[in-house]
Amino acid sequence: MNILQILKILAILVIMIAVFMLIPALLSLLYDEEACFRAFGITIAVMLAVSIPVLVFGRQDKKRVLSTKSSFLLVTLSWVTASLFGALPFFLSAAIPSFTDAFFETMSGFSTTGASILTQIESLPRSLLFWRSLTHWLGGMGIVVLTVAILPLLGIGGLQLLRAEAPGPTVDKITPRIAETAKILWGIYLGFTVAEILLLMAGGMDWFDAATHTFGTLATGGFSPKNASVGHYNSGFIDAVITVFMLLAGINFTLHFRMLTGKFRQIFLDTEFKVYISIFLIATAILTYDLFVNYPVYQSLGQSIRYAAFQAASILTTTGYATADFENWPFLSQTVLFFLMFIGGCSGSTGGGIKVIRVLTLIKTGLNEMKYLIHPRGVFTLKIGNRPVKKDIAYAISGFFVIYIFMLLLVTVVVSTAEHDVLTSLTTALVTVGNIGPGLGDIGPAENYAFYADYIKWFLCFAMLVGRLELYTVLIIFTPVFWKK
Amino acid sequence: MNILQILKILAILVIMIAVFMLIPALLSLLYDEEACFRAFGITIAVMLAVSIPVLVFGRQDKKRVLSTKSSFLLVTLSWVTASLFGALPFFLSAAIPSFTDAFFETMSGFSTTGASILTQIESLPRSLLFWRSLTHWLGGMGIVVLTVAILPLLGIGGLQLLRAEAPGPTVDKITPRIAETAKILWGIYLGFTVAEILLLMAGGMDWFDAATHTFGTLATGGFSPKNASVGHYNSGFIDAVITVFMLLAGINFTLHFRMLTGKFRQIFLDTEFKVYISIFLIATAILTYDLFVNYPVYQSLGQSIRYAAFQAASILTTTGYATADFENWPFLSQTVLFFLMFIGGCSGSTGGGIKVIRVLTLIKTGLNEMKYLIHPRGVFTLKIGNRPVKKDIAYAISGFFVIYIFMLLLVTVVVSTAEHDVLTSLTTALVTVGNIGPGLGDIGPAENYAFYADYIKWFLCFAMLVGRLELYTVLIIFTPVFWKK
Repeated sequence: MNILQILKILAILVIMIAVFMLIPALLSLLYDEEACFRAFGITIAVMLAVSIPVLVFGRQDKKRVLSTKSSFLLVTLSWVTASLFGALPFFLSAAIPSFTDAFFETMSGFSTTGASILTQIESLPRSLLFWRSLTHWLGGMGIVVLTVAILPLLGIGGLQLLRAEAPGPTVDKITPRIAETAKILWGIYLGFTVAEILLLMAGGMDWFDAATHTFGTLATGGFSPKNASVGHYNSGFIDAVITVFMLLAGINFTLHFRMLTGKFRQIFLDTEFKVYISIFLIATAILTYDLFVNYPVYQSLGQSIRYAAFQAASILTTTGYATADFENWPFLSQTVLFFLMFIGGCSGSTGGGIKVIRVLTLIKTGLNEMKYLIHPRGVFTLKIGNRPVKKDIAYAISGFFVIYIFMLLLVTVVVSTAEHDVLTSLTTALVTVGNIGPGLGDIGPAENYAFYADYIKWFLCFAMLVGRLELYTVLIIFTPVFWKK
Repeated sequence: MNILQILKILAILVIMIAVFMLIPALLSLLYDEEACFRAFGITIAVMLAVSIPVLVFGRQDKKRVLSTKSSFLLVTLSWVTASLFGALPFFLSAAIPSFTDAFFETMSGFSTTGASILTQIESLPRSLLFWRSLTHWLGGMGIVVLTVAILPLLGIGGLQLLRAEAPGPTVDKITPRIAETAKILWGIYLGFTVAEILLLMAGGMDWFDAATHTFGTLATGGFSPKNASVGHYNSGFIDAVITVFMLLAGINFTLHFRMLTGKFRQIFLDTEFKVYISIFLIATAILTYDLFVNYPVYQSLGQSIRYAAFQAASILTTTGYATADFENWPFLSQTVLFFLMFIGGCSGSTGGGIKVIRVLTLIKTGLNEMKYLIHPRGVFTLKIGNRPVKKDIAYAISGFFVIYIFMLLLVTVVVSTAEHDVLTSLTTALVTVGNIGPGLGDIGPAENYAFYADYIKWFLCFAMLVGRLELYTVLIIFTPVFWKK
């Protein structure tokens, strides 16, 4: 383990976050939010005070390649460190008086979950609201770089499939070096950000609302500065823009890169993309049927489609924005959304959950088993698209799924120790491990996480982190084999 | 496919069931239940009328070994045929006026699920109550023979593990032929039956109650002739007897065989048994803590243990008897029971669910994956007990788990189409596919399945069948590859 190396990279991360924190600090000046300005100032000072010495006094190592173990530790500690420092402005300004709550809100931000402990969101100072949404945006970008450029190298839970799957140039062929890849992805992310902000402003939002909602959309986070989330604006245009950008954020970013380089046809050759869009369309169709024909909630077909599509995209991509309180929807709709909570976005996107490519591989694994039962000596190759999937990868994905389900059950049990009902406990597990945000029961889209006991909030922070980092990255640290020489 | 061969075996099965049906027919005479006597008479006549011609006029084939495909079809059709004819007495006597309900009740019986559509159980004629419980007993025996002697030959979902696992003589070495094995298992089953009946009578039950409750216990079924289930008797002794026999029924029957032949030590060398008992003890401990210390429901520690142990054994073994309405228990207890609904009994027992050995293998698969992440080129053998598990078997078990979860989601969605809430829909899926019986929400231990729409009842019959026959046996019939030449 290269502890020093890890600390140095963490120090760079802390400085980068401090730089981004200058924006809300400036806003707090602008809006005359004195307590916030002081809080941001102190936080930035502390961040520089702890990180600069590490960089300056750290032994001047040659740049060494991190070991696999160190990489796991570094990635996990990155999110923890970011959340620890990121929570300080909320806490120091006394806007969120409990440090547990402040940490929860920040971890929820950086993990792009969007679960909030705030009961009155709009009463939070605007600079803090901006920082809250900015944590989404930074966390989302971190995840894209992580899953596209770093995790495949570590071989986490079958995500190496990503490379086998990519039609045409493979991920590592896009550019030879991680830094180059990261730059391109940042460029795409930034482009989407500008585009969505402009569109939302065209739809009538001011720049502040447009920016914060854009951060929440592209990170598939879900924090909104409004109590009523996106439903606040009651605008068909805004709903449409956010629906489309949520869906874009849930797509593998290497596909966006191909789109930008003019290879439009390739996106339609991508199996994961096709399945992802199909799931969205089928879910929207069932929801529309349920909301318009079966147990009418909306007056017109258009309205039904609008609300169905928004909520389906929001849950499937694990964003968690709401334009309707789906707890008041008929039960078939609720079950469809419950179902979507298991799936999540595409690999290499900012979306959480199990991921479409894994769900697809799992189904094919199960079907393949049946073929073997009928023809025990047959050879059946598992194929995604036209490409064969190695048995070891399918095996790794099954392992991932098992751990995912057990993680869900563990969180469910922990939440229920504080006497929350089974549905609340279970969907809390689903929406924290899946990084979604709102669930069913006591944590519906019109509710929040404030009522949970402190020990549950801390455990949910752990759940959000584990889910966001593809389970293994974090859990592996708790295995004895990790600490063996 | 040897259709004629299949029909002939089914005809033998029908005759066997007709013979067993003579017992309740006799009882209906004894109790002066005229309508029932007529119904049993007609049913037996019909059964003989359709089965004897098949046997007589069927071509006098040499006994041929069934093909794999034919075996799948035969096993599935056995349960369907038994349930179709078994439902007739309920329907023809007009005791259950809807054929859907009658079929549901019978499939629930033969699949040892124990989910009931009866709202007033005690108002059913006694001969029918006896027949209802007898379907459990017959179904349970069918399952033991099936899972111990037949399924391993078909290689279903990693249950061949059973043979790799068994310490000492392997299953097929107990006796060389399936018929021999079946006879021994019947002997054990019969022995347990006599023992439990006598103990329950010693506890104050009359022979009728003792017999019916014994049938429900040993099959891990759960039908009781009393509205309040086992809670009716409010006897610590009866609770203890049934708790112990439920646990015995959830153990691999080949272990019982070894016990009977004096090899007591071997049972403690069996990993699945040890894990099974540990799960039971841990669950009972948590429930006791929750019910006595955390949110006191019972006055004394003894009472808390008594009710905790009974309900834990009932759900873990997938029996479904109740001495308490656990819907009124604190939520931690409910979540623990919800958790147990996923597990089920040991392989080769009458219990349903995923099975302890599979759960154990799944967890080890997940943990093994982590070792590979740290040491990608390492070789890590998955071991159960001290025996290595072949990768293909672990892979098959993962496939089984995936199909299981998808089956649960499918049932959940279908149930919710009729506007039942998510918790009800989800636990309905868990307790039908897992062959348990009572769940949470609208189908708690104090409730029943009468309110479901007919199409849902039929689908739940399908779910019970699929769950009981280890998924693949039934589902495989719906794959195109099954019907290809």
